[in-house]
Amino acid sequence: MPENLAPTPYRPFEHALPTQVWSGPGSSFQLQKNPILQKAQRVVLITDAGLQKTENYSPLLESLGEKCAWVESEVSADSDVHLVNAMASRIRKDNIDTLVALGGGSVMDTAKAVAVVVQKGGSIEDHVGFKRIGEPLMPLICIPTTAGTGSECTQFAVIKNHQDNKKLIFVDDALCPAGAILDPKWITSVPKHTQKLTGVDALTHAVEAIAAKTCNPIGEALALRAANMIVSQRALLNLLEDDNDIHAAEQMLLAANLAGQAISTCMLGACHAMAHALGALHGIPHGQANGICLATVMKLNQEKAQTAYAQLGTVLGGTGDAPTLAQYAIERVSWFIHEEVGIPTTLSEVGIEPSHVNALADEALSDMDLLTNPVRIKTHEEMAALFKQLL
Amino acid sequence: MPENLAPTPYRPFEHALPTQVWSGPGSSFQLQKNPILQKAQRVVLITDAGLQKTENYSPLLESLGEKCAWVESEVSADSDVHLVNAMASRIRKDNIDTLVALGGGSVMDTAKAVAVVVQKGGSIEDHVGFKRIGEPLMPLICIPTTAGTGSECTQFAVIKNHQDNKKLIFVDDALCPAGAILDPKWITSVPKHTQKLTGVDALTHAVEAIAAKTCNPIGEALALRAANMIVSQRALLNLLEDDNDIHAAEQMLLAANLAGQAISTCMLGACHAMAHALGALHGIPHGQANGICLATVMKLNQEKAQTAYAQLGTVLGGTGDAPTLAQYAIERVSWFIHEEVGIPTTLSEVGIEPSHVNALADEALSDMDLLTNPVRIKTHEEMAALFKQLL
Repeated sequence: MPENLAPTPYRPFEHALPTQVWSGPGSSFQLQKNPILQKAQRVVLITDAGLQKTENYSPLLESLGEKCAWVESEVSADSDVHLVNAMASRIRKDNIDTLVALGGGSVMDTAKAVAVVVQKGGSIEDHVGFKRIGEPLMPLICIPTTAGTGSECTQFAVIKNHQDNKKLIFVDDALCPAGAILDPKWITSVPKHTQKLTGVDALTHAVEAIAAKTCNPIGEALALRAANMIVSQRALLNLLEDDNDIHAAEQMLLAANLAGQAISTCMLGACHAMAHALGALHGIPHGQANGICLATVMKLNQEKAQTAYAQLGTVLGGTGDAPTLAQYAIERVSWFIHEEVGIPTTLSEVGIEPSHVNALADEALSDMDLLTNPVRIKTHEEMAALFKQLL
Repeated sequence: MPENLAPTPYRPFEHALPTQVWSGPGSSFQLQKNPILQKAQRVVLITDAGLQKTENYSPLLESLGEKCAWVESEVSADSDVHLVNAMASRIRKDNIDTLVALGGGSVMDTAKAVAVVVQKGGSIEDHVGFKRIGEPLMPLICIPTTAGTGSECTQFAVIKNHQDNKKLIFVDDALCPAGAILDPKWITSVPKHTQKLTGVDALTHAVEAIAAKTCNPIGEALALRAANMIVSQRALLNLLEDDNDIHAAEQMLLAANLAGQAISTCMLGACHAMAHALGALHGIPHGQANGICLATVMKLNQEKAQTAYAQLGTVLGGTGDAPTLAQYAIERVSWFIHEEVGIPTTLSEVGIEPSHVNALADEALSDMDLLTNPVRIKTHEEMAALFKQLL
């Protein structure tokens, strides 16, 4: 019998999953049977132009039937404030009662933001921040088309103000959609590069959630299983190897969803703070930035997060006492990201130079996600040192 | 790097956790701050007479304050139909808007049933069955005082008709309480014997949920973590060894809650069908009966549930390929229940004789939980053979 692990100490916590989840291949083609949509009268479908060209689009639209008042397909990669406000105003005028979002994180976050403005009025910029919404929004059903953010089940939304290049962050229980439909048929047709980066993002969610200061056992359970699916069950590698592997697509979509639920309740850590800075200042794709930074952040957290990483080590197939398991978890995650998936190991490889470090450190130091990292990073020097290690 | 596990095949599923969960030592003494209770005007506390004598009772009652219209403390070990109907009628007359249940499975299930009658009218017997309620009930907050059923987060309730010795089973989303408060302070004072049997019940929930035909990845993730907490993190053994180990109590309460959430969405299997029969016909305590039967049922399911048991083997510290891990899981669970916790290995030890087998097999064969067991048990002979193996 193996070495027994010490119990995990938890802080008091609060948790709920207000989102109803439906899953299965083809589940997005049965919208007419969905209990939330059965109550709807007039629906708007929010998506992007690329998705409209896929073969899955028409069965989905058909199953929405006559309830679909119109389709809004102007959503760009980073949703803009103006777009959100304009959409909300049309939706209000037209007495729309329910939204369906079909897309990746940007589309889903746009739909969430639209629902906020429809309910609360004003501009989306009036509602930025932590727990500022506080009342139920119009029903929104999310159909994720990438296995990444898990936004279909989170209390988060991020919208960009393109004018001043600022990201506006919204955190509120009300942002958890009413429904999420996990249909792997959308995942297989995603370009390999996107599958890779969104998959690494999902793994980073799982790893940061379990180590976060505000981790709780419900989110932790979901995150551990997500990491196990992505790494040990090879869901991401199987999907990258074979476009027709609907089962790998399903596992990845589920894993991303579990990890999304986990961050929604446990929050994130320093890797995301660094990735946000790399995205904002140098346009490094989010999943790429997370993949480059994750193992380095895990090493920083190794001692403080030992119990959590030991749990992670267990579900990734390690054995031994807690320090051994934690060390194993870091090595396994690093091997997976860099050797198996092929994400670069240094920031130099994606064009970051020593002269960029100061600005990156400043940007990352003001990121909300730093607050829940197990090791407190307090100074500019500490943050800069992390970026320098990665050059 | 370890052997990679095959992905788990899932059926299409539907999931949500409508219950808000709060956790932490002393969390049940802060009822005045609870968001659900802040909206309440007149509350009834449903509990049992034994709990009223504990030192935790008065801080809880005080924190409920003047909103508490009265306390109902007549709940017995197996709640009766008449009690439910009588309570509901008084609660209706007195314009009570919110219920708080403080107790084990019986108390929580009684409160759920009362809420059904208050909402739907008639007698509780009119609402027996699967998805017969279909509308929201009055808010109910459950505070479990044993780490066992997880009823505080399930869509199940069981009420007994003592007159004809029948158990009435209710399954409906509406039975998920509005809130659950997990306060380990209630768990440490539970008698050892009860801690032991309720803990084995919680482990059985976890093991049956992951193997169930209707398992889904959300429930599975929660069940795997529950099993890991109970067995590998020694939560149950630590609690049995030391009454003052509030941390072990917290782990057990969390594990029972995760496992409860898991069965609510994944359902159960043949072990529960057998345990229900042993309870109904011979009064064998539920946790005891589960503990005696679990490993035998796992062996029966070993081949069909290999992928699920391999996952279980991983979180219990095993390594190797799927068949090795599945075998390890069965041995580890069996060792834990019989050698470490000390549950008997045979039914003879609790007074079951060969002459009892036929009636037990008949009773178990009609149990709903048999429908979701990975191996289909179709005939009286198959069921009787299982009981005979355990004599």
